[in-house]
Amino acid sequence: MTASNTVETDREIDDAVRAVARRAQIAARTLATATRAVKDAALHAAADALEANADEIVAANAEDMARGEANGLSSGLLDRLQLSTERIAAIAAALREVAGLPDPVGEIVRGSTLQNGLRLKQVRVPMGVVGMIYEARPNVTVDAAGLALKSGNAVILRGGAAALESNRVIVRVLGDALEAQQLPRDLVQTVDEYGRAGGVALMRARGLVDVLVPRGGASLIRTVVEESVVPVIETGTGNVHIYVDASADLDKALPIVLNAKTQRVGVCNAVESLLVHEDVAEEFLPRVFTALVEKNVRLHADDRSRNAVPAGASIAAATEEDWETEYLDYDLAVKTVATLDEAIEHIRTYSSGHTEAILTESLAASERFVAEVDAAVVAVNASTRFTDGGEFGLGAELGISTQKLHARGPMGLAELTTTKWIVNGEGQVRP
Amino acid sequence: MTASNTVETDREIDDAVRAVARRAQIAARTLATATRAVKDAALHAAADALEANADEIVAANAEDMARGEANGLSSGLLDRLQLSTERIAAIAAALREVAGLPDPVGEIVRGSTLQNGLRLKQVRVPMGVVGMIYEARPNVTVDAAGLALKSGNAVILRGGAAALESNRVIVRVLGDALEAQQLPRDLVQTVDEYGRAGGVALMRARGLVDVLVPRGGASLIRTVVEESVVPVIETGTGNVHIYVDASADLDKALPIVLNAKTQRVGVCNAVESLLVHEDVAEEFLPRVFTALVEKNVRLHADDRSRNAVPAGASIAAATEEDWETEYLDYDLAVKTVATLDEAIEHIRTYSSGHTEAILTESLAASERFVAEVDAAVVAVNASTRFTDGGEFGLGAELGISTQKLHARGPMGLAELTTTKWIVNGEGQVRP
Repeated sequence: MTASNTVETDREIDDAVRAVARRAQIAARTLATATRAVKDAALHAAADALEANADEIVAANAEDMARGEANGLSSGLLDRLQLSTERIAAIAAALREVAGLPDPVGEIVRGSTLQNGLRLKQVRVPMGVVGMIYEARPNVTVDAAGLALKSGNAVILRGGAAALESNRVIVRVLGDALEAQQLPRDLVQTVDEYGRAGGVALMRARGLVDVLVPRGGASLIRTVVEESVVPVIETGTGNVHIYVDASADLDKALPIVLNAKTQRVGVCNAVESLLVHEDVAEEFLPRVFTALVEKNVRLHADDRSRNAVPAGASIAAATEEDWETEYLDYDLAVKTVATLDEAIEHIRTYSSGHTEAILTESLAASERFVAEVDAAVVAVNASTRFTDGGEFGLGAELGISTQKLHARGPMGLAELTTTKWIVNGEGQVRP
Repeated sequence: MTASNTVETDREIDDAVRAVARRAQIAARTLATATRAVKDAALHAAADALEANADEIVAANAEDMARGEANGLSSGLLDRLQLSTERIAAIAAALREVAGLPDPVGEIVRGSTLQNGLRLKQVRVPMGVVGMIYEARPNVTVDAAGLALKSGNAVILRGGAAALESNRVIVRVLGDALEAQQLPRDLVQTVDEYGRAGGVALMRARGLVDVLVPRGGASLIRTVVEESVVPVIETGTGNVHIYVDASADLDKALPIVLNAKTQRVGVCNAVESLLVHEDVAEEFLPRVFTALVEKNVRLHADDRSRNAVPAGASIAAATEEDWETEYLDYDLAVKTVATLDEAIEHIRTYSSGHTEAILTESLAASERFVAEVDAAVVAVNASTRFTDGGEFGLGAELGISTQKLHARGPMGLAELTTTKWIVNGEGQVRP
């Protein structure tokens, strides 16, 4: 039953989504105490089922693609939406990789025996029910389900409307695979059929949904953060800076800036602003500008930086908007700064708290930058593109948290768990 | 300037509170890189200053007390509001204890060297700006300031209106002490002068305030959770259960139930409902009822439990409301259950996720209870009153979190920090 078939009021949708969440809570209980072997078997079964049903998934995806093209979706969005047998194989392979990761559940985080003999331990346990609100990317449907299952959680998905048919079939295939493994299919549910109101109902389901993770563009994330009563983990926006210090080794700096800007542009850990110390601007800027322009990067530079290069006039003048923008494209804002302090102050003003890098050979400069810049990841003499769960050795990631509560930086399996204190005694009372 | 002197619009108050938060952000930077020695010296100076200014604080508190009495505050609230030279000495002693705790900032949580030679570490850093919204308890003003300072954070306080004068003087004394230590007085600020609208403005100050901790009654906490756009850590509500299993050692069970109910009644870790397995109800209930009645506990029992005691008729019949209520008083709801499953199901239905205990000699029963009950603390054969930062050896606590995100259970200094990933390389780029 889809929202287009029946007219449902917001109240009805709210009740329906709460019923979905209650079923998820009950399903989650069976998984909370499941062994790693059971969870890994389910992940392998899900991967196999996706490949076995690839034709049906691709056919459903073709409907979404046709609708998307008719609705004039951009080529970038259509590319993220599109599935093929090869892409489904890659998605299944990612599920099998998650099966190979260690189980976070049961890890003892802290523990001690108190003076009165009480044995105390803080143990990692599943959150319970995880909600995901994301855009029209069917691979995220599977990634989120896989990470949630491995960490012992049920997941409720609200994907972009453009991927409705793809997600519907994927969720059904995953549910069938779970049932074949004697696990409840309610572990992976979608509220896509309720449209926008389904997402809103998810945001209101405090007490039923333990955490909500929005993943997508800045406006999606802002909406969820502002409207949700369920605790949210904010992900994604990366207005990333690289600061080239006076003492930087420019032969190292050049490939790092190129890599951070052009290795992949549409991602949150790509650099968006380059800050260059005035002592090296005249030497570094002509080199880096030439190399960037060769890679088709459009430059938006302040006057000092434009004047530092002979062809300065052909470079766009940076505006306030440039400092604020996460381009996610072949664009780079450039500013010449007089001091390390000016660089840190600029970053404080415009950073989204994702990843910030300094390129320097000065120990003092690197230590000040690391201590004073407030971001999930601070890098010294390395590309900002390393901010990634896989690169960090955490395994797959659900997103990159830019908030300070609970998770900061790449969110792996551990970030989908909470803890429980267990107290064992033999009759102790408090004096 | 107080709200009573000038008419300020919500917009003006919003701007004023945002300015307070911006000053807090700047002040927090100086503390983020301060050594433990500097922070501990500030805590000792603050403790000394409170004692040196005890007369002025007590005089301000007397104004609050007089107003509270005129406004008909309950004796419990007046007791929490009242300060004396002795109470101020105890508050100062608590600050000195915080100075004696290890510094959470700088702890390396995880770290490794990646295959490409990047050195990765996840380091504990201050949150930045912590907001506290609480009731008319001047000791919380000092506790919150002390814990925030030790963990490297600035704090913005919104205390109950009934403690306005006490808090005003305390915050001024703390600010003077900080300045005398060459630290910014903006590290400890209050928005009490803006009344209710000040609290609302604090809840809207996302990006300026990093976390908001409400501490107080259920309705205060619910309001903050529902209205805040700033991330919140929910604390406090404790609808705590003890389940006496069929295999319980009743000689151990009796003192545990008495301790959990009567050692102190107005606290969140006191037991509110007692569940007793039917196999031991006839033996245990008469004993525990007699002992509880001797301690002036009012019993609210289901029919089976009432019938199990000879004087059953004099015990009130439990209603649905009793199962839901956190009495915080000399009241206890009692239910006889047929199985461990019924006990777990009852707890699932009514628990606030704070502390739940099982009294049993059965390993299997204890393991099932620990695995299946979803709460911040699960205790076996111990009083629920041990759920406390001090008892757990975490030092002082800011409150007890009943949510799953970021902090669960007693919140000590570590829970007032976040982490930062630091990546050190020598030119690495992503292939």
